[in-house]
Amino acid sequence: MKKRDVPERRGGDEAGRLLISTVPFAQYDESPRAWLGAAGIEVVENPIGRRLKEDEIADLIGGHDYLIADTEPITERVLARADRLKLIVRVGIGLDSVDLAAARAHGVAVSYTPDAPSPGVSELTIGLMVALLRQTHIADRSLHAGGWDRYMGRRLAEVTVGVVGVGRIGKRVIRHLRGGFPGVRLMANDLVPDSEFGAEHDVTWAEKDAIYRDADVITLHLPLTPQTRDMMGAAELAAMKGDAVLVNTARGGIVNEAALAAALRSEAIGGAAVDAFLEEPYSGELAGIERCILTCHMGSMTKDCRIRMETEATEEVLRMARGEPLRSQAPEAEYSIQAAR
Amino acid sequence: MKKRDVPERRGGDEAGRLLISTVPFAQYDESPRAWLGAAGIEVVENPIGRRLKEDEIADLIGGHDYLIADTEPITERVLARADRLKLIVRVGIGLDSVDLAAARAHGVAVSYTPDAPSPGVSELTIGLMVALLRQTHIADRSLHAGGWDRYMGRRLAEVTVGVVGVGRIGKRVIRHLRGGFPGVRLMANDLVPDSEFGAEHDVTWAEKDAIYRDADVITLHLPLTPQTRDMMGAAELAAMKGDAVLVNTARGGIVNEAALAAALRSEAIGGAAVDAFLEEPYSGELAGIERCILTCHMGSMTKDCRIRMETEATEEVLRMARGEPLRSQAPEAEYSIQAAR
Repeated sequence: MKKRDVPERRGGDEAGRLLISTVPFAQYDESPRAWLGAAGIEVVENPIGRRLKEDEIADLIGGHDYLIADTEPITERVLARADRLKLIVRVGIGLDSVDLAAARAHGVAVSYTPDAPSPGVSELTIGLMVALLRQTHIADRSLHAGGWDRYMGRRLAEVTVGVVGVGRIGKRVIRHLRGGFPGVRLMANDLVPDSEFGAEHDVTWAEKDAIYRDADVITLHLPLTPQTRDMMGAAELAAMKGDAVLVNTARGGIVNEAALAAALRSEAIGGAAVDAFLEEPYSGELAGIERCILTCHMGSMTKDCRIRMETEATEEVLRMARGEPLRSQAPEAEYSIQAAR
Repeated sequence: MKKRDVPERRGGDEAGRLLISTVPFAQYDESPRAWLGAAGIEVVENPIGRRLKEDEIADLIGGHDYLIADTEPITERVLARADRLKLIVRVGIGLDSVDLAAARAHGVAVSYTPDAPSPGVSELTIGLMVALLRQTHIADRSLHAGGWDRYMGRRLAEVTVGVVGVGRIGKRVIRHLRGGFPGVRLMANDLVPDSEFGAEHDVTWAEKDAIYRDADVITLHLPLTPQTRDMMGAAELAAMKGDAVLVNTARGGIVNEAALAAALRSEAIGGAAVDAFLEEPYSGELAGIERCILTCHMGSMTKDCRIRMETEATEEVLRMARGEPLRSQAPEAEYSIQAAR
């Protein structure tokens, strides 16, 4: 849909028109759709049914005042086509898919729902840790193929877990571990360590290099930024213990995918579970490594998180429609991080 | 090895001879072997390298004073060949593989290591719960096959977990959940509810039927006895919610395997994870159901649990060899349960 082809507005002209690119939307709770209807906001939902590519979002964005966005790339090229756009709300936490400076230059506000996905991501992370430590995925595959390969594993309560990034999600992961598996040893790294939280949960703050070297389980809870891109490459993976395992439920690209595949193939590390990829849907070389657990960017995909994300995103749109102040705009730090590129 | 073929004792005659049928033994900690050597006990290890069948253990048992046993069937037929046996120590908790009355009739004491496996089983149980609620095994299989099937899951903290059997392992499962995933609702059933423990962990005691009907996640932590055999059959599975999931890390046969396969095939329940089977290695019809998570009786297979089980079993043998009282004999209740068959 090119700009000139934007159809006549069919009402809601004052309240505005909203494009929802994230799919599915309001599948478990219809309320957001009802609120938008009551506010007179016209809603257009993603007609393609999957995450949009840059060209696709660029073709759709014209004529819309608001965008409730998934992780499709919202670039200068897309924003140049956004003739009426005033607000992007990212359903989720990562802002790496949005060119924040370009949005600002085009006068588009950017909000997100940073708290909503955390509970889902942190629980998934615990499940993946246990799966890696016990190799349940390998036993499962073996049994379904007529085999019976028992694996001697380790327990969370007996190992050292290293948490890189102790923000909303990293803190939840630490709470699950300290509360549910009390014997676990916890190392953690953050740019600005929350020392009160660390003391309360018996966390040993450490440099990233020390975590790579000493932890039995490493889990990443960082945004993808120019600073974290390829943060773990061949050297960092080589520093890990031979039986250590790595969980990435954060963002693709923080761990270099080719380096991870090489480390798994050469059995330089004990295992890995990856939920987020540089390109999604993912079909890269990790898919050829059976002992690498792969999930489809499902961290925030629980009904309660989804409902909360959709609710918070919709409320932000409604605030702007009513002329009220926004509540969850992207922090200035996110603009600075991207500007440092 | 028939009785008449028992080789000449090569020493250790007074200290006795020990058959260790469980494999591997002392792989992670050599100490038990050293202690046995120092005590002058002659050790014969399982020459077949897997769990023994009835005929195999019957052929091996003659001439041994002690047996450190896996879950091979120790029946009247086996005990009739046990010409010198004084003690069986089961490495683990279940005593369903030992004919206790026959052992008593032959003057053989039976000990076990009931505490040692619990930490491994309870952690595995939590991992399997998260896997079922998030369908990570299906996403993993899909991605490795070139697909990308995202699944909207649920969080432990948002569901009701029903624990059937609140002994050593059930209590640990409840502690993991209440400590690590505080929002979870807990229902539980036990023959003799520990009301203090229940109150401390905010557990709602309920009849089994209520758990089958109301829980989103059902987990079993019971021994296999005549009373629990086929405890969950077609009717109990049909009573479950359509999206509820079932975890059995206890014993095969508590859930009727054919009824479970039928319930999964007809999608009458949301999913199941099974670690223990009536016959192991397992190759029954559940192996044909991809969405059923199958693991190879790996509950207690963590290094720390294994070391603890082997240590405790060896100590019991050493106690008898020194003429000291045993410390972890099978309780009388176990004899009564079997007698009620």
